[in-house]
Amino acid sequence: MKFTVYLAGEIHTSWREELIDKAQALDLPLEFVGPMTDHERSDNIGEAIMGTQPSSIAKDEAASQINNLRTELLMKKSDLVIALFGEKYKQWNTAMDASAAISLQKPLILIRPENLHHPLKELSNKANVTVETVNQALKVLTYVLD
Amino acid sequence: MKFTVYLAGEIHTSWREELIDKAQALDLPLEFVGPMTDHERSDNIGEAIMGTQPSSIAKDEAASQINNLRTELLMKKSDLVIALFGEKYKQWNTAMDASAAISLQKPLILIRPENLHHPLKELSNKANVTVETVNQALKVLTYVLD
Amino acid sequence: MKFTVYLAGEIHTSWREELIDKAQALDLPLEFVGPMTDHERSDNIGEAIMGTQPSSIAKDEAASQINNLRTELLMKKSDLVIALFGEKYKQWNTAMDASAAISLQKPLILIRPENLHHPLKELSNKANVTVETVNQALKVLTYVLD
Amino acid sequence: MKFTVYLAGEIHTSWREELIDKAQALDLPLEFVGPMTDHERSDNIGEAIMGTQPSSIAKDEAASQINNLRTELLMKKSDLVIALFGEKYKQWNTAMDASAAISLQKPLILIRPENLHHPLKELSNKANVTVETVNQALKVLTYVLD
Amino acid sequence: MKFTVYLAGEIHTSWREELIDKAQALDLPLEFVGPMTDHERSDNIGEAIMGTQPSSIAKDEAASQINNLRTELLMKKSDLVIALFGEKYKQWNTAMDASAAISLQKPLILIRPENLHHPLKELSNKANVTVETVNQALKVLTYVLD
Amino acid sequence: MKFTVYLAGEIHTSWREELIDKAQALDLPLEFVGPMTDHERSDNIGEAIMGTQPSSIAKDEAASQINNLRTELLMKKSDLVIALFGEKYKQWNTAMDASAAISLQKPLILIRPENLHHPLKELSNKANVTVETVNQALKVLTYVLD
Amino acid sequence: MKFTVYLAGEIHTSWREELIDKAQALDLPLEFVGPMTDHERSDNIGEAIMGTQPSSIAKDEAASQINNLRTELLMKKSDLVIALFGEKYKQWNTAMDASAAISLQKPLILIRPENLHHPLKELSNKANVTVETVNQALKVLTYVLD
Amino acid sequence: MKFTVYLAGEIHTSWREELIDKAQALDLPLEFVGPMTDHERSDNIGEAIMGTQPSSIAKDEAASQINNLRTELLMKKSDLVIALFGEKYKQWNTAMDASAAISLQKPLILIRPENLHHPLKELSNKANVTVETVNQALKVLTYVLD
Repeated sequence: MKFTVYLAGEIHTSWREELIDKAQALDLPLEFVGPMTDHERSDNIGEAIMGTQPSSIAKDEAASQINNLRTELLMKKSDLVIALFGEKYKQWNTAMDASAAISLQKPLILIRPENLHHPLKELSNKANVTVETVNQALKVLTYVLD
Repeated sequence: MKFTVYLAGEIHTSWREELIDKAQALDLPLEFVGPMTDHERSDNIGEAIMGTQPSSIAKDEAASQINNLRTELLMKKSDLVIALFGEKYKQWNTAMDASAAISLQKPLILIRPENLHHPLKELSNKANVTVETVNQALKVLTYVLD
Repeated sequence: MKFTVYLAGEIHTSWREELIDKAQALDLPLEFVGPMTDHERSDNIGEAIMGTQPSSIAKDEAASQINNLRTELLMKKSDLVIALFGEKYKQWNTAMDASAAISLQKPLILIRPENLHHPLKELSNKANVTVETVNQALKVLTYVLD
Repeated sequence: MKFTVYLAGEIHTSWREELIDKAQALDLPLEFVGPMTDHERSDNIGEAIMGTQPSSIAKDEAASQINNLRTELLMKKSDLVIALFGEKYKQWNTAMDASAAISLQKPLILIRPENLHHPLKELSNKANVTVETVNQALKVLTYVLD
Repeated sequence: MKFTVYLAGEIHTSWREELIDKAQALDLPLEFVGPMTDHERSDNIGEAIMGTQPSSIAKDEAASQINNLRTELLMKKSDLVIALFGEKYKQWNTAMDASAAISLQKPLILIRPENLHHPLKELSNKANVTVETVNQALKVLTYVLD
Repeated sequence: MKFTVYLAGEIHTSWREELIDKAQALDLPLEFVGPMTDHERSDNIGEAIMGTQPSSIAKDEAASQINNLRTELLMKKSDLVIALFGEKYKQWNTAMDASAAISLQKPLILIRPENLHHPLKELSNKANVTVETVNQALKVLTYVLD
Repeated sequence: MKFTVYLAGEIHTSWREELIDKAQALDLPLEFVGPMTDHERSDNIGEAIMGTQPSSIAKDEAASQINNLRTELLMKKSDLVIALFGEKYKQWNTAMDASAAISLQKPLILIRPENLHHPLKELSNKANVTVETVNQALKVLTYVLD
Repeated sequence: MKFTVYLAGEIHTSWREELIDKAQALDLPLEFVGPMTDHERSDNIGEAIMGTQPSSIAKDEAASQINNLRTELLMKKSDLVIALFGEKYKQWNTAMDASAAISLQKPLILIRPENLHHPLKELSNKANVTVETVNQALKVLTYVLD
């Protein structure tokens, strides 16, 4: 049996590559999907396809509908969602994706640095499992797939 | 016919009172519910009921489970959700509640200052309606209930 | 027991008033809701609330999100949907609302002039009941509530 | 991972072939399904199987039940729906299929010529993404599958 | 708290009146709904509303769509379904309604004479409770509402 | 793409073999499942596994729970249900399975001899397609898979 | 707004009366439902209605189907479930009801003595809130309804 | 067609190995999943991943969230659940998992020694099939897959 994992959240560090490499080294039966991690391409995808938009809000609207389509399509095909919060940015997309996972009844592992525990306490309570590092998430995966 | 509206989001300004007062002045057939808006009481409710906890994370966990119970109970009884993002704080709860509303197929009105349009673009795209002020949200309510 | 009926479709004739009047005369236990029937107000509601938009597409987008919120809110509260197709206009909204009713498992009565039977054959096949006049729809209501 | 795409809408131009050819040229991991595109066969399928019917309405009813079975069976197996509106015909089937996709929570890409933006504004607001050409839809697919 | 009960099944004896009278005598907090019990009116309702049909199959189709609308509307409003099988007729409607109740997760009480136990064994196994008389069904109601 | 078809209904003729043979001859991408067609084995399976039961009702209960498990397991894996009514027996299982298919939103083809149209009119109205012969059902399959 | 609370679990102490009395003293907008708490009547209800059964297993089966009907009917009408585990008995019904509440997405408050924390750890993790006393549950209710 | 079976319940005997071996000997098209059966590892998994916890309750909470993630992930991928109750321990997890299977509409086979029939009567009534031995469960599987 193979499982598909959606990797939501932060796109400015290489945590996805780290997790994927280690999962492969461990030979875990996992396939990974996730958002567009090229930030600039993600922000500009609306204008790249539909042409220049009349305002920055319209540019954002054009991009966000395509990014949301991507998330919706891929998360529905997933068996598990891992969402990682980093130190920077608003990260409302990550909160939105984590909450969508919960509502779609996809099991959710939350990764967040300990110092974010207070603002994330309600989301953490709703997640199946909260850990602090990619390695801990990997250990959870190893255990549930054993 | 009467409708119940859940008012998610910011708890440090009086936007709820403003909205409720104006809705009553307009005689709109609405009943309002929402989160605990006494921030300190919300943060301390776990220890208030279950006693002192061994760590700040345990204190947060005790509080968050009760706050989440409240949100879940009241949002399920609601016909519509209004979520307001302010300028301060992480507001991941607001993003989580807005996303939960979308997933529960509760119509969602998002209120956010224009300058937050970029970090909220995906959430805004998923909301039914995005406006910038409480007054605009009120006009939307007036129209749909006319 | 009281039932709520959503009246979807054509907004340029007075079929809603006719149906409501006759239902009241028959003392049927029904409450009626539906879309904004003031066509101009419906088309302009986005700009009326959010201000002038940069293009006719943006104006339409601003209006449509509010009209869709109205439909979604009111159709969810309904027990039954009646959709009437007239001779004029594209009426894609009517087809969209009728199809949404079917998908939400709300019983659907379709009213259409006989000469539209060919383009509406698939929608008619999915509706619970297809009739040709408001009076026939009224007789169906009378029978099911007897 | 492979995805199945249902191609709803217009059957009088070769947009499906164009899209499928280009998707194959790009080696996208997609399989395509859709309605019967032989218009005459679609209209006559009821009588072809069940024999001559007593009226044109009965002939339409016999055909539509089989066409609806096809749509329902194939759309349920799909991960994504693309619906294209052309300039001609009532196209209520296309609106019905697009709305069914939304209700089944299948991500929906709407393709429509710009001049149809007004009558399609509510449907466009509910679609995940609205574009104007097959090529733009293809670019969306390329991006979400990258 | 009040409960609505749908009384499915046989329409040629007065079991509904008996059950309703006794429930009222016991002051049970119940409201009852059900199918049209005037057999002739039920069979003819299609032609009564849509006019003479070209064949007996078309007459049946016209009637059945209205009877199904009635069942669907009323069963959705119900908290509990009671289905009674008698000795005569095919009673496939009763089996269909009982199965629909199970699928809609409406609790189901089946009433059937003991000698029908073999042909009804699978349906009986899926029902919540199977009894042999109206009085036994009434005792079940009395117990669960106590 | 491959489809799974559940063949519900009559078990005393060889209509399943006929349908399966012809489907294979036509190379249709179909896999078939269905109930236990050895009538005696189906009736006795409870006692065969759990030992002699104290009464014929208990024997029926023991068998029916296993037969229902089989139907539930296999119907959930199916994309389409075909239900055939014959001339003999009560066939309440067939009506129950057909109704379950409708409620599970599995497309349903009903096969029944013309002379059964009256007692089956409501079930026929809820089925996607009603035909009279196995060959007609096969033609429907050929068309929707073309 | 009024809420209905299902009180699952132990039936050999007066915790329900205590909770209900205190809730009324606090004027909380709550209505309470629950299982039959007369243990003997609950065990004998099958035979009381259907007559003496041939074995103790058959007697249990007759009773359990009626008790399950009661639970299913009342839990579906509830907004919140409170499940209390005591020190005695297997209490598998309580675990079943608590799990059913979670699956039905009814918010769940678990009350259990601290010394049962180990065998109840998985259920406690799935409950919204776990407390140790009726008074603590009451404080949770007071907070969420404030 | 292949089926996945989740084996819930007792982890202190080798019933899983026995069932799996016999199923393989019979060449049944089944794949088996289940909980962590190394009791100590299951109890300690939280601390093994997240480090020493401040109390035994916190240790249990840390472990249970990971065990629940495992159950949720694997049960969702399953077509059928078999739950075995033994003579020892509280086994509230088994009752919780069996009830979750019912609520997720996964067919459920319950295995329990005859002497547990009274405390398990309600759960048994909700299961699809109740048997007393692994061999009987195997015979049920053999029959439904024949």
